[in-house]
Amino acid sequence: MSPFARTPEPPYYAVIFTSQRSPGDESGYEEMATRMMELAPRQPGYLGTESARDGDGFGITVSYWRDEAAITAWKQQAEHLEAQRLGRNKWYSRFSLRIAKVERVGNGKP
Amino acid sequence: MSPFARTPEPPYYAVIFTSQRSPGDESGYEEMATRMMELAPRQPGYLGTESARDGDGFGITVSYWRDEAAITAWKQQAEHLEAQRLGRNKWYSRFSLRIAKVERVGNGKP
Repeated sequence: MSPFARTPEPPYYAVIFTSQRSPGDESGYEEMATRMMELAPRQPGYLGTESARDGDGFGITVSYWRDEAAITAWKQQAEHLEAQRLGRNKWYSRFSLRIAKVERVGNGKP
Repeated sequence: MSPFARTPEPPYYAVIFTSQRSPGDESGYEEMATRMMELAPRQPGYLGTESARDGDGFGITVSYWRDEAAITAWKQQAEHLEAQRLGRNKWYSRFSLRIAKVERVGNGKP
């Protein structure tokens, strides 16, 4: 499957989540990550996700959403709330979250 | 050095660059990446960069800027133009670029 998200014409929203994995519990983490990637696409307004984590455990996940209401609904989804709790307490030593409105896409020209 | 960017209170801008590395020319690519990370912080309005590339060569780089004028100026910087040209022709099999206005940051609460 392509790691690139197929998003519509802007405007739409991006949630930029950067995180540093704590060592350990790789299987629990992977299981939850897989589950979240099953659930997120069922949320209204979900547009796609792009994600990369380097060998040092630093990762960036950008999920794309139709509007802020869709982001809020996903944030409050029950299983996702539990994932957030475990992320804070166990899986991530640090993270940051930015909500941004995608206004345009580049075309490679100056 | 921390991979997390220290950004001010929103609003500010994010350039979300996702890319798939083509195999080969690792040294040329690394050299240019290093050079760009020397130059970008000298640009007016530069706020920081976060970057991760996974073992399959898929990467996300998010750079943060004060405003759109700062993004435009960096896009037109001479050495950066050459880097963009080599990226298109040699280093990336595919990429996408999104310009987004960061409106708020998450606090981990629902």
